[in-house]
Amino acid sequence: MTELALHPDRLFPADPDTRAVARRLHAEVAGLPIVSPHGHTDPAWFATNAPFANPAELLITPDHYVFRMLYSQGVALEELGVPRADGGAVEIDPRRIWRRFAENYHLFRGTPSRIWHDWVYAEVFGLKVRLSAETADLYYDTMDAALKTEAFRPRALFDRFGIELLATTESPTDDLAHHKAIRDSGWKGRVVTAYRPDPVIDAEHEAFPEAMKRFAELTGEDVTTWKGYLAAHRKRRAVFAQAGATSTDHGHPTARTADLAPGEAEALFNVIVSSRASPEQAELFRAQMLTEMAAMSLDDGLVMQIHPGSFRNHNARVFARFGRDKGADIPTRTDYVRDLKPLLDRFGAEPSLTIVVFTLDETAYARELAPLAGHYPALRLGPAWWFHDSPEGMRRFREQTTETAGFYNTVGFNDDTRAFLSIPARHDVARRIDCGFLARLVVEHRLQEDEAHEIARALAYDLVKQAYRL
Amino acid sequence: MTELALHPDRLFPADPDTRAVARRLHAEVAGLPIVSPHGHTDPAWFATNAPFANPAELLITPDHYVFRMLYSQGVALEELGVPRADGGAVEIDPRRIWRRFAENYHLFRGTPSRIWHDWVYAEVFGLKVRLSAETADLYYDTMDAALKTEAFRPRALFDRFGIELLATTESPTDDLAHHKAIRDSGWKGRVVTAYRPDPVIDAEHEAFPEAMKRFAELTGEDVTTWKGYLAAHRKRRAVFAQAGATSTDHGHPTARTADLAPGEAEALFNVIVSSRASPEQAELFRAQMLTEMAAMSLDDGLVMQIHPGSFRNHNARVFARFGRDKGADIPTRTDYVRDLKPLLDRFGAEPSLTIVVFTLDETAYARELAPLAGHYPALRLGPAWWFHDSPEGMRRFREQTTETAGFYNTVGFNDDTRAFLSIPARHDVARRIDCGFLARLVVEHRLQEDEAHEIARALAYDLVKQAYRL
Amino acid sequence: MTELALHPDRLFPADPDTRAVARRLHAEVAGLPIVSPHGHTDPAWFATNAPFANPAELLITPDHYVFRMLYSQGVALEELGVPRADGGAVEIDPRRIWRRFAENYHLFRGTPSRIWHDWVYAEVFGLKVRLSAETADLYYDTMDAALKTEAFRPRALFDRFGIELLATTESPTDDLAHHKAIRDSGWKGRVVTAYRPDPVIDAEHEAFPEAMKRFAELTGEDVTTWKGYLAAHRKRRAVFAQAGATSTDHGHPTARTADLAPGEAEALFNVIVSSRASPEQAELFRAQMLTEMAAMSLDDGLVMQIHPGSFRNHNARVFARFGRDKGADIPTRTDYVRDLKPLLDRFGAEPSLTIVVFTLDETAYARELAPLAGHYPALRLGPAWWFHDSPEGMRRFREQTTETAGFYNTVGFNDDTRAFLSIPARHDVARRIDCGFLARLVVEHRLQEDEAHEIARALAYDLVKQAYRL
Repeated sequence: MTELALHPDRLFPADPDTRAVARRLHAEVAGLPIVSPHGHTDPAWFATNAPFANPAELLITPDHYVFRMLYSQGVALEELGVPRADGGAVEIDPRRIWRRFAENYHLFRGTPSRIWHDWVYAEVFGLKVRLSAETADLYYDTMDAALKTEAFRPRALFDRFGIELLATTESPTDDLAHHKAIRDSGWKGRVVTAYRPDPVIDAEHEAFPEAMKRFAELTGEDVTTWKGYLAAHRKRRAVFAQAGATSTDHGHPTARTADLAPGEAEALFNVIVSSRASPEQAELFRAQMLTEMAAMSLDDGLVMQIHPGSFRNHNARVFARFGRDKGADIPTRTDYVRDLKPLLDRFGAEPSLTIVVFTLDETAYARELAPLAGHYPALRLGPAWWFHDSPEGMRRFREQTTETAGFYNTVGFNDDTRAFLSIPARHDVARRIDCGFLARLVVEHRLQEDEAHEIARALAYDLVKQAYRL
Repeated sequence: MTELALHPDRLFPADPDTRAVARRLHAEVAGLPIVSPHGHTDPAWFATNAPFANPAELLITPDHYVFRMLYSQGVALEELGVPRADGGAVEIDPRRIWRRFAENYHLFRGTPSRIWHDWVYAEVFGLKVRLSAETADLYYDTMDAALKTEAFRPRALFDRFGIELLATTESPTDDLAHHKAIRDSGWKGRVVTAYRPDPVIDAEHEAFPEAMKRFAELTGEDVTTWKGYLAAHRKRRAVFAQAGATSTDHGHPTARTADLAPGEAEALFNVIVSSRASPEQAELFRAQMLTEMAAMSLDDGLVMQIHPGSFRNHNARVFARFGRDKGADIPTRTDYVRDLKPLLDRFGAEPSLTIVVFTLDETAYARELAPLAGHYPALRLGPAWWFHDSPEGMRRFREQTTETAGFYNTVGFNDDTRAFLSIPARHDVARRIDCGFLARLVVEHRLQEDEAHEIARALAYDLVKQAYRL
Repeated sequence: MTELALHPDRLFPADPDTRAVARRLHAEVAGLPIVSPHGHTDPAWFATNAPFANPAELLITPDHYVFRMLYSQGVALEELGVPRADGGAVEIDPRRIWRRFAENYHLFRGTPSRIWHDWVYAEVFGLKVRLSAETADLYYDTMDAALKTEAFRPRALFDRFGIELLATTESPTDDLAHHKAIRDSGWKGRVVTAYRPDPVIDAEHEAFPEAMKRFAELTGEDVTTWKGYLAAHRKRRAVFAQAGATSTDHGHPTARTADLAPGEAEALFNVIVSSRASPEQAELFRAQMLTEMAAMSLDDGLVMQIHPGSFRNHNARVFARFGRDKGADIPTRTDYVRDLKPLLDRFGAEPSLTIVVFTLDETAYARELAPLAGHYPALRLGPAWWFHDSPEGMRRFREQTTETAGFYNTVGFNDDTRAFLSIPARHDVARRIDCGFLARLVVEHRLQEDEAHEIARALAYDLVKQAYRL
């Protein structure tokens, strides 16, 4: 058995002088509270505070980073307990699922999943040996026992992790009952929602008609008319804001925006609700709605997040058998210069609006996103996202955006995760990589150390609070 | 107040062995004269040798790197004294403009503007403390006083900076009177022009008709005929060459070239001068003219520069209120493989022609530009440009082009700036980054140190003189 | 004269701690046998074991890396002895060709060619001084004399290089006589073929009709019918497999795949053999054939390699004068997400199929290829290829693919070369760069050293044997 120990210098550059600066910078930010303004944890956890079921259900079965890698190497999703769309049999023994993962843990070498998992094992569960086939049961038993204790319930972990704020993401059709329960519970933890209207905007989503029906019910608006539809958004946004939301989120296939004349927008909407929209019309409607959402943000102050460029459910067999979100979403080239222009022509010059843009296409960092964010008052750059939420990905983000956009047109870190236990690990990686990047600037005499300290704190804490209006 | 001091090791890699090699390489090139073959300084400065007005008018108001960043963070361009197109009121107190900049100087941390400005403050003006809100007035007073002295007049600074040659850029419709005045003045400084025919080639530019009229007047040619139009170019090129020009420059939206049959080209031209050209025809005409310009270069020996890929005036509000060149130009994806083919099919194999290609799309470095320049005798790679004229940008340029194009298919450094005082700072950055890159090759035993010394000198001095035929 | 010596630490990172780890990792893999599963050496060399003619014919005239660089700097291909298509006169004195190369050896500074050549000079020929105009004759004489000896015959070098397996690449129309001769010779060296059907798939290739005729002759099938054509492929694949092939190879202009209904595929084929196919039909047929080849691989177990994205013969003048493969192939942007979908929808979920994908478009590494290979069981990533088969190229490959695809979805190194003498040098570069990358992960505490040792061995030896089923 091999020792598992998190090295205090992990993720810092190797050069001793640079590492020494990185250490000093990190010492000042390591203990700052975690602000998580965008993610996908389940508010039910904090509403009910029920214990997590077992290690596999907590750490393996719902984690697309984990099962995509195992699947790529020939492990069937059924063997990992991923539920089939047709209700067919899958593995239900969590220990066997855990063992399968443990036997294949070497596949994650060099990936961020490895870093996040090791952190969870060492820091959250106090494990002292490396995960492997041999230690699989030791791990399972240790974690399973811990999860049955009070100290491992969701609220206790939230407090232990030093989370100042955690945002979840809900559809306009969500009744936000869990958020209400959290607020009514007397618990001090701050868990807020974010407005993610894709289900009632994306006419190509199979559940669109159903979502529109629910949207009408919840708002009392006639969402089959353009006026009623927009009014319904305004109402739900207000409800979300009241439940603590400070942001909206938009996960479109492209970054396309449009700014149609009111009559054109209404005519397009009429096609959309007729269920006869072509793919191009569905795309144009999504584009138009980004501009409509920005207009509402100017009124209600919600920060707008755009997460474009994922080709969803690329694997037809996996989609047919298991449904959405099964690790088969693949990034595509994304054009920001032409696609965002209609929105920016209308609202880009508004300093009171904040639009946070993310990308899965790193080629846009230096060529498009940094120049845009380094110019438009309304634009800010979201951190390295999804596949790029990783040491190398974060380094490339800073190396390719800072010289044109600076640090202050970025918004700190987003963990964007459903994997609750890994949230501190993800922020830890971001803080270490940012401190390492700043240390390099200091040692190359491009920045003085007092300034690097200020920026390290801004990247870890201040900028996210400003950008998300927290 | 914090000390301002330029560290002698700035921009060198942190590793001590690598840094030691970089120091030795840099020591040999630090003192070489500056050759600036492409830029946008105003020849009137050197013709009249009038003192610069004040720190804000010299360093802030005309610098799009500076005002784009301030604007991105909510500072109105009016507050920085940027003139409005409608002549409306803007800030006219240079000290207040300076203070606004100083208060926001932290925004430039990590950007090349910060490096260039600190160099100007420390080296040109002898300032010893860092710029901030507190030191804003000290800075303003020190610089304002200096600018009133003989030693800070344009010619004195030119001499002090060790500039061997400085190229400006003029339209064919410019009478080159300032260049004549410089030559007639008896001053020894070598300031030459470059032929930038975009105003009489780009039919989509609002001033195209006016420029064509002036083009006819200056040349005595009937520029409404294809033959007369080409003859007019030939005449102005000859005049420019006589005024010292060794190059032309072409700033098209794309890298597209065309090689139409003579009859087709003439028919296209007739549409262009009819003012009824479609966007596609305007684009095709620009494409055709690159090939026509190359043909003329084969005759008159002018080196051809192509600077493609900027989406100009992206911000509609800023364009309406302030006009062109206000920090709202955004890079776009650029295709070199297909777009340059017509030109290269005709002239790419000519070793007596030199075409220097630049890019704002770094993805083309390793994929397209290095393979093209590492093959075609007529092609050379311009240095990292505009947003990429920065430490990280220059490193990426060398890392991504050298292995396929080598060093000798590149042309040294271009500062490409209007910010005269920053010219030595920009060359300083380029020399340091190149020495750091070479030092890494030496320490990784990919190059021997005697060779690195030769290359360092070539990159700083020899290659630019060869490529630009100086 | 300057010393030529290969430094034992070459290509390792400069930082002393990182270098120390890299050294330890490399010590364990430096001596492993070379497995070369994909390349372009000539099987006749090993069949006849005739001596190589002279240094120029061995190292200069056939090497497109070498002559493209010399050509880019104004050396005519004729001066390097490259044969003209019209049989016109070219340089025939190998010593004069060699001298021209030697005089221009500085052009290769910073390129992988320099690294490979220096290795060949020092390790294969025992030269002790650097190549230059002054040492050109010493080099020529030394090498020419050596090539006349038994120890420098192809089989002797194969054995000396520690090659465990070498794959060549042949067309379906090749009779594989050389491979038969090798097997019949009693020599122990393992040289196998690979099935490269492009000549009978690419209807735009000028030799397509002739190749189809030969394809019919060799197989006895009526290749003018869809059924006969597919049967002919199956037959030749079986013959190739019997001659040791474990893989096929496909070098299409794009990564496009198609999965037409059988009737549609047959109709398309009928157009293809009618010689009236449009470019789009030719492209669609190539796309369809990738899926057909995958279907056959499921049956016969041949690993499928896709090498897309080269714009072939870009230089019209060179193509007219010298023909194909003259250093004028230029990479283009390649879309994998949409282009591979038809193939992946059909076969991507098959764990018993292996499709190795390569790219000339590095922007696809992190955005498309690592996410695809980190998900689909049938996909693996080929190593950094062609222009990117270089120290910086390999580093970018690992930095941009590992975090999403891990190490185990990659397949080790391919030298992909015709330059036989450089094969060990190329593997040496790959092993050193991989060890350097792993060492950085160790020193940044992202991996423990025992794991890095396992991975270093996998990257150098184990993965290639698994992926190529050797």
